[in-house]
Amino acid sequence: MADSIRVTVWNEYRHEKRHPEIAAIYPDGLHNTIATHLRAEGFTVRTATLDEPEHGLTEAVLAETDVLIWWGHMAHDEVSDEIVARAKRRILEGGMGLIALHSAHFSKIFQTLMGSTCNLKWREIGEKERLWVIEPGHPIAQGLGEYIEIPHTEMYGERFDIPAPDTLVFISWFEGGDVFRSGCCYHRGRGKVFYFRPGHETYPIFHQPEVMRVISNAVRWAAPSGGPEVHFGHIKEPLEPVG
Amino acid sequence: MADSIRVTVWNEYRHEKRHPEIAAIYPDGLHNTIATHLRAEGFTVRTATLDEPEHGLTEAVLAETDVLIWWGHMAHDEVSDEIVARAKRRILEGGMGLIALHSAHFSKIFQTLMGSTCNLKWREIGEKERLWVIEPGHPIAQGLGEYIEIPHTEMYGERFDIPAPDTLVFISWFEGGDVFRSGCCYHRGRGKVFYFRPGHETYPIFHQPEVMRVISNAVRWAAPSGGPEVHFGHIKEPLEPVG
Amino acid sequence: MADSIRVTVWNEYRHEKRHPEIAAIYPDGLHNTIATHLRAEGFTVRTATLDEPEHGLTEAVLAETDVLIWWGHMAHDEVSDEIVARAKRRILEGGMGLIALHSAHFSKIFQTLMGSTCNLKWREIGEKERLWVIEPGHPIAQGLGEYIEIPHTEMYGERFDIPAPDTLVFISWFEGGDVFRSGCCYHRGRGKVFYFRPGHETYPIFHQPEVMRVISNAVRWAAPSGGPEVHFGHIKEPLEPVG
Amino acid sequence: MADSIRVTVWNEYRHEKRHPEIAAIYPDGLHNTIATHLRAEGFTVRTATLDEPEHGLTEAVLAETDVLIWWGHMAHDEVSDEIVARAKRRILEGGMGLIALHSAHFSKIFQTLMGSTCNLKWREIGEKERLWVIEPGHPIAQGLGEYIEIPHTEMYGERFDIPAPDTLVFISWFEGGDVFRSGCCYHRGRGKVFYFRPGHETYPIFHQPEVMRVISNAVRWAAPSGGPEVHFGHIKEPLEPVG
Repeated sequence: MADSIRVTVWNEYRHEKRHPEIAAIYPDGLHNTIATHLRAEGFTVRTATLDEPEHGLTEAVLAETDVLIWWGHMAHDEVSDEIVARAKRRILEGGMGLIALHSAHFSKIFQTLMGSTCNLKWREIGEKERLWVIEPGHPIAQGLGEYIEIPHTEMYGERFDIPAPDTLVFISWFEGGDVFRSGCCYHRGRGKVFYFRPGHETYPIFHQPEVMRVISNAVRWAAPSGGPEVHFGHIKEPLEPVG
Repeated sequence: MADSIRVTVWNEYRHEKRHPEIAAIYPDGLHNTIATHLRAEGFTVRTATLDEPEHGLTEAVLAETDVLIWWGHMAHDEVSDEIVARAKRRILEGGMGLIALHSAHFSKIFQTLMGSTCNLKWREIGEKERLWVIEPGHPIAQGLGEYIEIPHTEMYGERFDIPAPDTLVFISWFEGGDVFRSGCCYHRGRGKVFYFRPGHETYPIFHQPEVMRVISNAVRWAAPSGGPEVHFGHIKEPLEPVG
Repeated sequence: MADSIRVTVWNEYRHEKRHPEIAAIYPDGLHNTIATHLRAEGFTVRTATLDEPEHGLTEAVLAETDVLIWWGHMAHDEVSDEIVARAKRRILEGGMGLIALHSAHFSKIFQTLMGSTCNLKWREIGEKERLWVIEPGHPIAQGLGEYIEIPHTEMYGERFDIPAPDTLVFISWFEGGDVFRSGCCYHRGRGKVFYFRPGHETYPIFHQPEVMRVISNAVRWAAPSGGPEVHFGHIKEPLEPVG
Repeated sequence: MADSIRVTVWNEYRHEKRHPEIAAIYPDGLHNTIATHLRAEGFTVRTATLDEPEHGLTEAVLAETDVLIWWGHMAHDEVSDEIVARAKRRILEGGMGLIALHSAHFSKIFQTLMGSTCNLKWREIGEKERLWVIEPGHPIAQGLGEYIEIPHTEMYGERFDIPAPDTLVFISWFEGGDVFRSGCCYHRGRGKVFYFRPGHETYPIFHQPEVMRVISNAVRWAAPSGGPEVHFGHIKEPLEPVG
């Protein structure tokens, strides 16, 4: 069934062009690393980037997207409000899934869906992270061990200003003394949203098999599940007699 | 302790001026009916309305508000984005409570905190509503019976496009065949949000003691509870040695 | 993938033998009606009943069961505590799913997993029920319309004494004035639990396609998802240096 | 209002009698250390211990208890099933609050309310713990900083086999590489339950002001809130006309 899920991997795609040390890890951009992996899993994958017309997220592209993966970091403000509103509509009304990776906590699309600041603490000293599986019965934990270890990463620490997740799948431990809700599932409208913390651009995190496993699992979980279309607004007649 | 809680009751205050049948029920405006009740409960109450400068919600007023009660219906779009952002900041960062009443489901402040459309079904034939208490241990249910009955009201029906509440306190039954999540609690940032469905302007719902009881209870629940101020951003030094 | 999911449909199987009007609706027992449907969907299905040795739920049967469907009504007390403990272990530790139907709200297995009385109000006058889909993005709502209508049924009403569900998928409206949380999802241990209200034995509810659709969807949702085995107990060595 | 809340602090009270190093920290037993603190906060406090008749938890004592604090470790099995059922009934039906401390995760009363094994990982090397406040708007976080630090403690680590809390207030970081959901709020029946992790008997944790602050806050949160009594069972007449 995996091959029927259509994924669009969106990347700001600035870091990789400017910083040779990032390009060394992700030579064709982070989006292509992720896309290549997902194709190998059997998904139908395209990519889109900030500097394409309409950021590559035309109505047509979104209409053919089951799950949108979002990576952004330096240029959140350059994303057009109109495109954000379009993607949000496709999630809430159309049931498209959204996977927000790492620094996408500050992306407009994630913030507007959460309704809070999505702010957090951060520290960049290459410390160790261990993501503990808190809900082992959740499909996003499929095929994992009890935790995922990332040898060197940027730290994100609590308080993470998000609504309490519908399901909390991972909690991270950081060497320097912090914790973080690292895998957060939400239903929003007809769509599903997954926030996944790992992924700093200066570390080869998207080359790590367990990390990619989580992303594949999350694509399957977040894909539209075929529930009812919802009708809102004025209903003139009661379903049952009144009075 | 009730007298130390400072409440601001905000009202669009248009209906009451235009429609004599609404003015007959709420002669000084819906906000004053609610304010009078809350003063009798010992709260410190002020009111604010759309047509005042800054909608009556200056920085100074918000800084002195523990709980903001919001009523709006016809003129959501006339509320300034800047004032909405100001109130949102006071909730998320300052811990102010928000109680959104009835048609405030479509207010900008509620929508931006929820992150979804907050759309619903509605029908206006004066049918009966019964709000069942689903979580009898919640402080907002204090002093109630097993349900509240409202003889004639506008119907709001599911699907109500909101995030699943942190706690669902009431579910409504409607004579015409619909149900609705009528009392919804959320933590957002340092603040607390309560959505309460009853309150159509053409019925004397805010003269009904059980309805006012819920609003008083919600004020106590939503008032800031004195938790930690949160510091976000760059942390240079780890709390623990690394490496 | 459906054919790889192994379902055991458990039935008390007393009503059908004693009451000809129930036998008229479910001639081979309610379990066989459900089993026949699920086989047609491609699942691997067996049945088990109260009066078989070990109630048909031997260690071997449970070890080969991915999802256990439970129907009981008159004879909850005759179910052995040992078998209940065995099934519970298989859910919490092994990740087996459980679907509790209708009067199984009072089954020992459901009660012990919920930790509350699971009590409720009930009325038997053949009134109409309408189950509204509250979370249209949930996989259990796949293929449904906005609600399911059951023309004549026994009423179950709130307060339903359960823990707040992890996800609430359906809320029921009843003609006689009541509401009910009718589709409730829980993670418990490594397993998943779904409570589904419809199904009174004197009505042909398990012949209704939408009801069977929900059960099929729930089987897929509740099947083990392959998450980590969990190790509990004493850990002598820290994962990281201490001191 | 604090003085009207009646607290019973229950202690197994075995460790303190057998181990001089524990008696050195809690000379009159852990229960009396906690009781003395709570009296100073204005609560009405009594204590009860395992070796008293009916473990000190007669019907009369429970009927006069608003919040029961539970400490047990070595002798969970010696607690009578009848007394556990009695306390559970008082929580679910009467609305009594329960605060389960540290090793009470394995107490019968906590296990039966959770419905899961409540198992966890543990390690006893005196490592550092830091409890991060995850929900700063919750009343249990009143008066705290962003985290509580406990210099030396026994570690409890995830996977903690509990139902996802209704509200997660604290997450612990441990020096040795583990995390833990350390402050967990639940509604169960008409009552409220709070699990709080700190408290190993060989460390002076109940002499630490922030720990005692959390316990006081939790007492206020868990006290009965005066919601409706609930009636279960057969309802002969519909509230609304049917048919």
